Amino acid sequence: MKIARFRANSRVVYGVIQGDQIVEIRGSIFSKFRMTDAVHSLTDVKLLAPTDPVEIWCPGLNFLEHLEFAGQVLGHGTPPIPTEPQPWRKGRNALTGPNDPIIIPRASGGDVHYEGEAVAVISKDCRRVTPEQAEKFILGYTCGNDVSERTWQGKDFSFWRAKGSDTFSPVGPWIETEIDPNNLDLMVRINSEEVQHCNTSDMMFSFPEIISCISQQVTLRPGDLVFSGATGVTVAIKPGDVVEVDIPGIGVLKNNVEQEF
Amino acid sequence: MKIARFRANSRVVYGVIQGDQIVEIRGSIFSKFRMTDAVHSLTDVKLLAPTDPVEIWCPGLNFLEHLEFAGQVLGHGTPPIPTEPQPWRKGRNALTGPNDPIIIPRASGGDVHYEGEAVAVISKDCRRVTPEQAEKFILGYTCGNDVSERTWQGKDFSFWRAKGSDTFSPVGPWIETEIDPNNLDLMVRINSEEVQHCNTSDMMFSFPEIISCISQQVTLRPGDLVFSGATGVTVAIKPGDVVEVDIPGIGVLKNNVEQEF
Repeated sequence: MKIARFRANSRVVYGVIQGDQIVEIRGSIFSKFRMTDAVHSLTDVKLLAPTDPVEIWCPGLNFLEHLEFAGQVLGHGTPPIPTEPQPWRKGRNALTGPNDPIIIPRASGGDVHYEGEAVAVISKDCRRVTPEQAEKFILGYTCGNDVSERTWQGKDFSFWRAKGSDTFSPVGPWIETEIDPNNLDLMVRINSEEVQHCNTSDMMFSFPEIISCISQQVTLRPGDLVFSGATGVTVAIKPGDVVEVDIPGIGVLKNNVEQEF
Repeated sequence: MKIARFRANSRVVYGVIQGDQIVEIRGSIFSKFRMTDAVHSLTDVKLLAPTDPVEIWCPGLNFLEHLEFAGQVLGHGTPPIPTEPQPWRKGRNALTGPNDPIIIPRASGGDVHYEGEAVAVISKDCRRVTPEQAEKFILGYTCGNDVSERTWQGKDFSFWRAKGSDTFSPVGPWIETEIDPNNLDLMVRINSEEVQHCNTSDMMFSFPEIISCISQQVTLRPGDLVFSGATGVTVAIKPGDVVEVDIPGIGVLKNNVEQEF
């Protein structure tokens, strides 16, 4: 089932995607809901980021093929293969929705990159769970883009602006609740040309392992988002580009790139 | 004026402190409110963290006398004197209120320290403001404790658990709206014995400078909290300890320490 958050007229509501329509629901997507008679054409609504999270989490280095590149960005050699997840907070302010612009900050020199990722959506308060238990606290999966300003990433003490500037966290287009997260193909395209291709089977730590790790010290909340980490070597995006994160079985997260003046 | 957030019966409301009483208000503390006829004795209510923030910000190294110690904790030499604030996110989940326990996580070896700080409270959406403008976006000031697990602080890739574990961000007891933030004495006491003493005049970057810096890339929201940074060398707190952060003119933030089992 595909669950979307959207604006219809001036109301923000949730609905279930059925073909090219969206059926409004009543209740909570995290507990119990039912369909209503309100049906919209997908072209008539404004899709939003699929949840309103308290926190957006990313694992540190979670793909072997990203290690060397990450070491270069951070200004040192290839880091050792991590023996446990190294979570960090992306920043709630960075969240933006499908079809909303990624805005290159005025203060940036322009070295802003995409990172296409799969994203788990937390369904229930979650604290001190095992990886086996963690699966029961995941509502479903969506697409995300861990937009990263590489100069700031190498220079700053934290990722606060390198990965946490406004609009640096596009997520969507909706949550797929019935999909195997361990074997998802993921492609990023810039202006229709493929620039990243990976599969979640290459994640060093699975979503349940990352969530279990975070939950040892932190209470995760319904709607919180957990990114997969990214792979490979990325390139800069420029104003005017269209960036797509495509996970077949989930959907395509599409954002254009704008320059802040 | 001292503005507190509190629970009375089962309602969460704001009020203005008057002596040993608290007068409920109606409206928003961030725009317009008026007093009501509902008056409580301070001993009858449960004070809460004074806002429900989207984000809790800290500057990196903001007191000269903390530089050498911070370098030791992070496992390298004394860092250079920063030329600009180095903000990082403390984690919304860590927020806890006055008189609530600081809980030492089960997974910690016990090297958990206090850091007494002053905290600015954001009053309005705030983006790309100058330090001069930033003052107009501050509602007032309160006390905070940047609780820190030193082993994790030195070992981890980010501060996600070192400074972001549940209960690691006590804030309160209330917001003082009429006080000069540039000359605040600040004391920390453990079991009534003073263990930290500083003055906000020693901050390398003032609150308006820190807020201006963050706002260049991030939209701050009403209720967001901005810590001052801490000074000096700290020591571990233990289960059973009572920790007080005392800023004369604001109030005393008091929390006891418990062990998670």
